[in-house]
Amino acid sequence: MTDTTTDTAGTVHAEGHILEPGGPDRAGEGPEAAGILASARRLVHPELRRAIETLPGSLRRVALYHFGWEHADGTPAAGSAGSAGSAGSAGKAIRPALVLTAARALGGDPAEAVRAAAAVELVHNFTLLHDDVMDRDTTRRHRPTAWTVFGDADAILTGDALQALAQRMLAEDPHPGAPAAAARLATCVMELCAGQHADCALERRGPDEVTLDECLAMAEAKTGALLGCACALGAVYAGADLDDVDSLDGFGREAGLAFQLIDDVIGIWGDPRRTGKPAGADLAARKKSLPVVAALASGTPAAAELAELYDRPPPGAAAGTPEHAERAARAVERAGGRDWAQAHAADRMSRAIGQLAVAVPDPEAAGGLLALAEFVTRRTY
Amino acid sequence: MTDTTTDTAGTVHAEGHILEPGGPDRAGEGPEAAGILASARRLVHPELRRAIETLPGSLRRVALYHFGWEHADGTPAAGSAGSAGSAGSAGKAIRPALVLTAARALGGDPAEAVRAAAAVELVHNFTLLHDDVMDRDTTRRHRPTAWTVFGDADAILTGDALQALAQRMLAEDPHPGAPAAAARLATCVMELCAGQHADCALERRGPDEVTLDECLAMAEAKTGALLGCACALGAVYAGADLDDVDSLDGFGREAGLAFQLIDDVIGIWGDPRRTGKPAGADLAARKKSLPVVAALASGTPAAAELAELYDRPPPGAAAGTPEHAERAARAVERAGGRDWAQAHAADRMSRAIGQLAVAVPDPEAAGGLLALAEFVTRRTY
Repeated sequence: MTDTTTDTAGTVHAEGHILEPGGPDRAGEGPEAAGILASARRLVHPELRRAIETLPGSLRRVALYHFGWEHADGTPAAGSAGSAGSAGSAGKAIRPALVLTAARALGGDPAEAVRAAAAVELVHNFTLLHDDVMDRDTTRRHRPTAWTVFGDADAILTGDALQALAQRMLAEDPHPGAPAAAARLATCVMELCAGQHADCALERRGPDEVTLDECLAMAEAKTGALLGCACALGAVYAGADLDDVDSLDGFGREAGLAFQLIDDVIGIWGDPRRTGKPAGADLAARKKSLPVVAALASGTPAAAELAELYDRPPPGAAAGTPEHAERAARAVERAGGRDWAQAHAADRMSRAIGQLAVAVPDPEAAGGLLALAEFVTRRTY
Repeated sequence: MTDTTTDTAGTVHAEGHILEPGGPDRAGEGPEAAGILASARRLVHPELRRAIETLPGSLRRVALYHFGWEHADGTPAAGSAGSAGSAGSAGKAIRPALVLTAARALGGDPAEAVRAAAAVELVHNFTLLHDDVMDRDTTRRHRPTAWTVFGDADAILTGDALQALAQRMLAEDPHPGAPAAAARLATCVMELCAGQHADCALERRGPDEVTLDECLAMAEAKTGALLGCACALGAVYAGADLDDVDSLDGFGREAGLAFQLIDDVIGIWGDPRRTGKPAGADLAARKKSLPVVAALASGTPAAAELAELYDRPPPGAAAGTPEHAERAARAVERAGGRDWAQAHAADRMSRAIGQLAVAVPDPEAAGGLLALAEFVTRRTY
């Protein structure tokens, strides 16, 4: 999952461009989501930073770079000093915010769940480090990916160490929910790995050999699982019973899938100045993202045109030219891929709200989680 | 650390060629070590196998191949069915044996520490999978490495999943020592990663730019740390106090360094029919193993010859020819590298025994751990 977002004015904002603390709330984000995210960063980033400082020096350097706290040469990155509340480094903290907000929604004290929130963020970043190596992605959060700066081995090892750090954080947490949270987080890692495996396998297959169900299952494992786990961990830390924990997991999963669908739309039609990627980068790389696969499955003339564009890129352009990507984008739209993705995102959001209502029937208690879920899916690219 | 062993007749035995249950004890292994290892395998391999069966299908296949339980096509490997006590698959189980034997030495019940023993073995194998990718090693335990069969991505993802599985096993263990064991194992993973980082970094430097102290520190992190952690986890599960846990860690670390020194000697002078690698493979690859670095640091004429051989391989042979490796082996020997490694291994063993005596003064209680430590260092290649 990439980390981009938008406001309702229709412009994509990449991570780091929104929610500066003290700044005005942007239209469409809503004051509640903005406040929750800023407060989650204030609570969790110092814990995260402290944990990363305990890594062995060689790997600490890679981790500090990856989180955006240091430049490649080890000098502090702009805004990293004392900016625990800023989104300018280390991301928006959506997952930690889900942990803390879920804990509160189920009657727990968010302050007690800070380690769990940091552990989830460490796992997220461990998978980003490894996925970037496997996918040969060269840009993340507007900066060169860690493997391009430090090499594959250091990126792999730092990812390994971040997973270990996440688990140590929970193993050392005296909270009674910590062991169950640790087991759930470990199970989630296995699902994330299976999701990334499926993603790599799907990318190797031809555009007509991939079904929408396979792609949705992959997206659920790769993106939904960790958002679900974040919500579930909050519930575990609130002492919720297993049914409620599972409902919260379902809420996060469905919202995560909505998130992914919108992210895929942004990957095609997002503003490159905001996403940090070239226009239509996903199409130029012939990525089988969800709107594309839906378009291919539509049986329309535009689907046939898209299949041909995906099968046979213009000669001499290994990853496709901008013109090629633009033609593909128009074909996806004509084949209904964009409309389907938006409608399906809305559908997933309503399923998410349904799951949440089971565990948290009081709308006031559920408000924070709803605000976060809407924050990630209200984005209009 | 590779997995080879020898008997006192002077022949290297690769893993899987010794300690068949019910078979005669080979001279030099000692009945006690053989019995401890076979019994550890009987206890731990079924637990390990059960855990691996819970992995998502795509990664389970890679794990079953890596452990030697299945062929690349998914068919069962010879001797894998019901062979929980056999060393023919999944390795000798030295680390699990150390966990169980340490638990017993400190008055605990080894049967209660089986999950911890399996978790240590999972971590060991996660690092093997990743190290093979980074080092581009093509052979392990006489078989093609996982990345050569399934690709880099699947080897990385399966390693990630095995780390998660190890931590879940401890998180789900109701034993009161489990959280402390989980935290210790996670810290050990970070040290293993730092050791592998140092190994990669040292290999990139010239032969005259590497000190023996750096190489010893790297070997302690890369090999000693996990053997130390295995012993420490056994002590934790026996309810030992922190001083005794730390002494057991020190015992395993020192024995691990002795193990590595002997392994490095085998990497140069071992019998290729037993090691599964070509004769002098480490030298042909110009690996800066401990005997080599000791030889280079000796200030002898043979050291200068060796430095030249390492600096300038014969033309046309990127990784060195067998003749080149043979000349290098003779130079290491003349420069005293072989003698130093053997003497230093003996020194580390006596430090190990000293650490053990602090926590377990009763020689009878310490007997099993001593037998295991001697098993790995009595090897005469």
